[in-house]
Amino acid sequence: MKLKLSSYWRSSAAFRVRIALNLKDMEYEVIPVHLLKNGGEQMSNAYGEKNPNHLVPLLEEGDHHIHQSLAIIEYLDEIQAEPPLLPKSALDRAWVRSLAMDIACDIHPMNNVRVLRYLKKLDIGNEARDVWYQHWIQLGLASLEKQLANDQRVGRFTCGDEPGLVDICLVPQLFNALSSKMDVSPYPALMRIFHECMKLPAFIDASWEKQIDAEGSNPAAPPQE
Amino acid sequence: MKLKLSSYWRSSAAFRVRIALNLKDMEYEVIPVHLLKNGGEQMSNAYGEKNPNHLVPLLEEGDHHIHQSLAIIEYLDEIQAEPPLLPKSALDRAWVRSLAMDIACDIHPMNNVRVLRYLKKLDIGNEARDVWYQHWIQLGLASLEKQLANDQRVGRFTCGDEPGLVDICLVPQLFNALSSKMDVSPYPALMRIFHECMKLPAFIDASWEKQIDAEGSNPAAPPQE
Repeated sequence: MKLKLSSYWRSSAAFRVRIALNLKDMEYEVIPVHLLKNGGEQMSNAYGEKNPNHLVPLLEEGDHHIHQSLAIIEYLDEIQAEPPLLPKSALDRAWVRSLAMDIACDIHPMNNVRVLRYLKKLDIGNEARDVWYQHWIQLGLASLEKQLANDQRVGRFTCGDEPGLVDICLVPQLFNALSSKMDVSPYPALMRIFHECMKLPAFIDASWEKQIDAEGSNPAAPPQE
Repeated sequence: MKLKLSSYWRSSAAFRVRIALNLKDMEYEVIPVHLLKNGGEQMSNAYGEKNPNHLVPLLEEGDHHIHQSLAIIEYLDEIQAEPPLLPKSALDRAWVRSLAMDIACDIHPMNNVRVLRYLKKLDIGNEARDVWYQHWIQLGLASLEKQLANDQRVGRFTCGDEPGLVDICLVPQLFNALSSKMDVSPYPALMRIFHECMKLPAFIDASWEKQIDAEGSNPAAPPQE
């Protein structure tokens, strides 16, 4: 059964699921949901019937609807084991999940479209909003850099030599960082992994400018081989 | 090997892990980390060595450190299968994970101590901060109520008749809601599950007033049998 993914080209949560689907080589149809136009298509009643959170992504498999990017990715990993997106040992799996959640729970939610909209209403000014945006990214990336800089589990990718759940979360978050013109030089371990990922079709094809609803290009130049 | 849990009595992420450990009947030592005193004990260098995110909870098992509450709970469920905290089928697991993440990714991070501190610096006033706090809870609980009100998978607890991952996340979030004097009458399905949970020692023993570092009582009266 063909999968359908409600997605927005710049949504990093949707971007994660696109990478996972590509890594698994699963066929899927992208249903664009424009998060900004007319207050956001995700706010419609029709979309809310499928995802009461009014957020992307949403995966449809026949009559089944699954939301929350990490729940979708764990699901994909359970229904199609190869290639695995999580390592085998319970300790390594915990480590990988914790790093993924460092991004998905502690960086990204703070910088969601709906939060930035709320901050706009608070009338704190554009500059303070930009500082807010970069603050949470910098805090989170600094912690990730510290965790990955000298860890023996790191290989070509975050956990070993195959891409997995952390890479899937890291790349979209770094797209946001690069797009906001942040200085990424404090994160050499993360940027090395980023460039490794961006050599792979699964990541390239999931990225901003490759989307059918794209309105701009990727913030990072394609890596030179 | 005895587990150690860095915890703060009111932290809902730590509260989740306490419930999970209790449901699994695993022995653990609580190491209190005061999140508010002197800018927060979690900000110390010594704590940062163990958890570079400077957040609670942190689980220590010998030399191994695991952070992020949901990663810890999945780990506990993998190393000790009984009682299971997640259902068996991949679709049900995805559903449970998505509901847990609705809380852990889309409600709670917005109302973390560090976010409330940041808002204080923005000088938007106490009232606007309270409105912010309740806004994200109301938005998230309304979505959860809609998802659980008529779902056939709901039993005595969120997924069937045994407590699991969603209940573990829901109860601490409702403690926060009750403590902030929010009107919880729009969430009858959630409150029914809450009261079922609060009949169980695993939830009662994990709750605010039962902690060795408690400075106050539970915001909900203990349920009458």
